[in-house]
Amino acid sequence: MYIEINSPLDMHLHLRDGAMLNLVAPLSARHFSAGLIMPNLVPPIRTIDDVVSYKKRIIRAIQNEKFTPYMTVFFHEQLDFNTLQALKKEILAVKMYPDWVTTNSAWWVKTVDLAKIWHIFEAMQTLEIPLCIHWETNDFVMDREKNFIPIYEMLVKTYPKLKIIMEHITTKESADFVEKYDNVYATITLHHLMITLDDVVWWLLQPHLFCKPIAKRPEDRQALLNLVLKWSKKVMFWSDSAPHPITKKETKYCSAWVFTAPIAIQFLVELFEKHNAIEKLWLFLCQNAKDIYKINPPEKIVRLEKKEYMIPERYYDVVPFKHEQIVSWSFTHW
Amino acid sequence: MYIEINSPLDMHLHLRDGAMLNLVAPLSARHFSAGLIMPNLVPPIRTIDDVVSYKKRIIRAIQNEKFTPYMTVFFHEQLDFNTLQALKKEILAVKMYPDWVTTNSAWWVKTVDLAKIWHIFEAMQTLEIPLCIHWETNDFVMDREKNFIPIYEMLVKTYPKLKIIMEHITTKESADFVEKYDNVYATITLHHLMITLDDVVWWLLQPHLFCKPIAKRPEDRQALLNLVLKWSKKVMFWSDSAPHPITKKETKYCSAWVFTAPIAIQFLVELFEKHNAIEKLWLFLCQNAKDIYKINPPEKIVRLEKKEYMIPERYYDVVPFKHEQIVSWSFTHW
Repeated sequence: MYIEINSPLDMHLHLRDGAMLNLVAPLSARHFSAGLIMPNLVPPIRTIDDVVSYKKRIIRAIQNEKFTPYMTVFFHEQLDFNTLQALKKEILAVKMYPDWVTTNSAWWVKTVDLAKIWHIFEAMQTLEIPLCIHWETNDFVMDREKNFIPIYEMLVKTYPKLKIIMEHITTKESADFVEKYDNVYATITLHHLMITLDDVVWWLLQPHLFCKPIAKRPEDRQALLNLVLKWSKKVMFWSDSAPHPITKKETKYCSAWVFTAPIAIQFLVELFEKHNAIEKLWLFLCQNAKDIYKINPPEKIVRLEKKEYMIPERYYDVVPFKHEQIVSWSFTHW
Repeated sequence: MYIEINSPLDMHLHLRDGAMLNLVAPLSARHFSAGLIMPNLVPPIRTIDDVVSYKKRIIRAIQNEKFTPYMTVFFHEQLDFNTLQALKKEILAVKMYPDWVTTNSAWWVKTVDLAKIWHIFEAMQTLEIPLCIHWETNDFVMDREKNFIPIYEMLVKTYPKLKIIMEHITTKESADFVEKYDNVYATITLHHLMITLDDVVWWLLQPHLFCKPIAKRPEDRQALLNLVLKWSKKVMFWSDSAPHPITKKETKYCSAWVFTAPIAIQFLVELFEKHNAIEKLWLFLCQNAKDIYKINPPEKIVRLEKKEYMIPERYYDVVPFKHEQIVSWSFTHW
């Protein structure tokens, strides 16, 4: 049994920089047609020069693969109509991390200054630049996504033509919210469709399943799955694949995020097949993002066959999601 | 500033066996007067011979320290009035792990067979042997303690003279339950008074704070603290100190439990001092257990002074709780 997917897209991807970029970019580029590249380098991607230069490094890293890196900039308080207008030809979206999602707040939007940045949302609406938001407060880890909604609902209502993408939603409340407003969209990862907090911290602690936002309750995972399987036009796949070397994962203080780029499509096919929805996978994996972002990524047919594949224990020094486990679909060529 | 504590007790302690026993037993025996020793070796401690032999190994391991190991046996379906009567002179309590708390159910009490073991509870009540219960179901990790209450409330009501100790409570619901019935008591760890799930899985994942039951929500921690600080007669300190070598903690699949034995008393003094309750620490750390178990442990005065102490990074190959952090009290002698 075979399946072909035309132009799978990864609409939220961390490619890092330097040696790690060179390791992981080809793994994404091999089977995805395009990706939305996150700007949170150190320091973050903020200016046109940053964008152009990072894009060049990505294109060099992916070598000869046909893959379009759609670029983003880091939301910051110096953005205005003119800078956004100039940026527009180089970026697909602006990514916002409210300062409360991290202790490293130097580069992040100050919550207290939200009134000061209202004009930026206004400009983005006028210029039709989508806003991607890391959708969490700084509350208790199981509440931080749920508690974000009442704060940002005002933004959603004030700019009804501004496309707002709730990034990496993980809760039932978010799954409900995305359907409530016409201008709200969401990305969902593979791992949040597959795991719950039980997988991370129950019998044994699994650092390679430790991600942000943390995987939530079984009913949350079910709500995400329901949203995807009803073929909602408002949700896009993104891997949030973010590699960390094993030394940062198996240690006293382990870094967050999981590495799924090379095996995400196979698991998605398996998941949709299990739910008798395989023929609609293209919506989640491709078409919805094309419609939402109005993009036309390069055509790339990836072909899979129903044949077991053992996930490697490592890609160099990065341990992938579901390492040493079997997925029931394989690419016909790597 | 100095404080003296007479006969601190650790009423739930894992000493392991073999080389690990020899490493950790002296660390507990140095400052505790006695401890209730958990029977979950592999295979578990079940018979008089098991108890006597394990106790001998413990006494050898603690060398010349004045320390009484109060022994327990593993609850199993072959216990009856006669075996319990014979065991009574060697043990202080029976420890029960319902099978649902682990996948390794071979040695554990089968839930489905609860009716078959009713006579054992009857015998324990008659013989006045307390029952310590690992108080969790096999539900979602954040619900498993809360969901245990309705199941075991029947046991509490059916045997109103059987002393039931809810081991290592971590939730507000358990803190409320312990006050609801005269025959219910509880143990609380140091770490559950200090950390929440945020410490385990928020910014960075911390395997050395990964314990069972998992640390819960801020309001749960507050409820435990309130119970202890109101000088409840029904709660006892226990460290649940359980050492794991660093190779089992900083790896792909990390073992649970934390190692607090050598630094628990110092942190308890700091915590009670912070809440202006230092003069009542002896209830939690000593007197309540003496009253509940009707024991008379050896007198051992431990003396602390208000002087900063840096927790070591390791005890041999075991990383302790709050490693490399400072506690504001020190023992005047080690």
